[in-house]
Amino acid sequence: MAQAVDFWVSIGSTYSCLSVMRIADVAARAGVTVTWRPFDVRRIMLAQNNIPFRDKPVKAAYMWRDIERRAQRHGLNLRLPAPYPLAELTFANQVALVGCAEGWGEDYIREAYRLWFTEGLEPGQEPARTRAIASAGQEPARVLDTARSPETAARLEAETDRAMALGVFGAPSFVVGTEVFWGDDRMEDAFDWARDGRLG
Amino acid sequence: MAQAVDFWVSIGSTYSCLSVMRIADVAARAGVTVTWRPFDVRRIMLAQNNIPFRDKPVKAAYMWRDIERRAQRHGLNLRLPAPYPLAELTFANQVALVGCAEGWGEDYIREAYRLWFTEGLEPGQEPARTRAIASAGQEPARVLDTARSPETAARLEAETDRAMALGVFGAPSFVVGTEVFWGDDRMEDAFDWARDGRLG
Repeated sequence: MAQAVDFWVSIGSTYSCLSVMRIADVAARAGVTVTWRPFDVRRIMLAQNNIPFRDKPVKAAYMWRDIERRAQRHGLNLRLPAPYPLAELTFANQVALVGCAEGWGEDYIREAYRLWFTEGLEPGQEPARTRAIASAGQEPARVLDTARSPETAARLEAETDRAMALGVFGAPSFVVGTEVFWGDDRMEDAFDWARDGRLG
Repeated sequence: MAQAVDFWVSIGSTYSCLSVMRIADVAARAGVTVTWRPFDVRRIMLAQNNIPFRDKPVKAAYMWRDIERRAQRHGLNLRLPAPYPLAELTFANQVALVGCAEGWGEDYIREAYRLWFTEGLEPGQEPARTRAIASAGQEPARVLDTARSPETAARLEAETDRAMALGVFGAPSFVVGTEVFWGDDRMEDAFDWARDGRLG
């Protein structure tokens, strides 16, 4: 029986767009259960002095081109580069955490990425945050109040600490037992590992 | 007709071990011609403030585990972690450059990686450098003299400048026309691109 996969997702990560759009299909094909676990990747990366793109224009330009090529392979039509970095990364993930607790988190995160990567609207800010919440069938005012509560903020911190304790240092990450797989390009490997205990 | 692939290889890069061991088979299966182009990746990364592992223990630990899993997939038996970083990276690549100009560079680089990743012997230092040169069928004293000449040093600098001009910021990189593919996990993509002008 396959192990479960925890999908550590942080709105704000660029490559996570590919994973957010793909993971439902890949998981279904693999017959593996996925739990979406929003966290604050920026806090971990700052703590670990891991700044992949901000002061690295050549690497950043490559990142956009690499995402573009891979999106084309997967039939995704993106408008690149998307706004980056996000001003409201933490808040966007607080909303995601509320959504995952209530069962509509996947829909919200997918729509947040769609708005960000096809319409250029930043997650966590208006109008994207209201639109993404409404698209997931929820009442924006209630969700925004819950998302900005100290309880939600504390829960996102705790989830982020949990990710760090598992060895997660970037997003997206896929965790199977004690094995961490980092990057959209390791998604299939994580599912192979969940099923077979080794890479395919 | 497939385009050629330039394999920008820099002894000292850890993930390049996988590429150095795999690329001949992958290229043959793809029916694509590969040119090995040694360069000094450290100079580019320092110039671009791109320090992936030195001060990042969590990410570095992940890197070794990721290489181990991927090596197992490819049937490679490595002794990890290998010594890192290399003290004599530049000199090891000067030897590689001499070898690629004279037609024995691939054999030398493969043996340098084998000694480094299975016996723990650092490239560019004794006894590894003499053993790797001899394994490629060359007379070590002659090669070491040529490798440490100002002409060879200048040629490695020029090749490194050329890599930088192409947008190469890390190793291994695979360049097809104006497209850069970075990382061992992009090797197959580069060959797909060389053959089909798109990812498979």
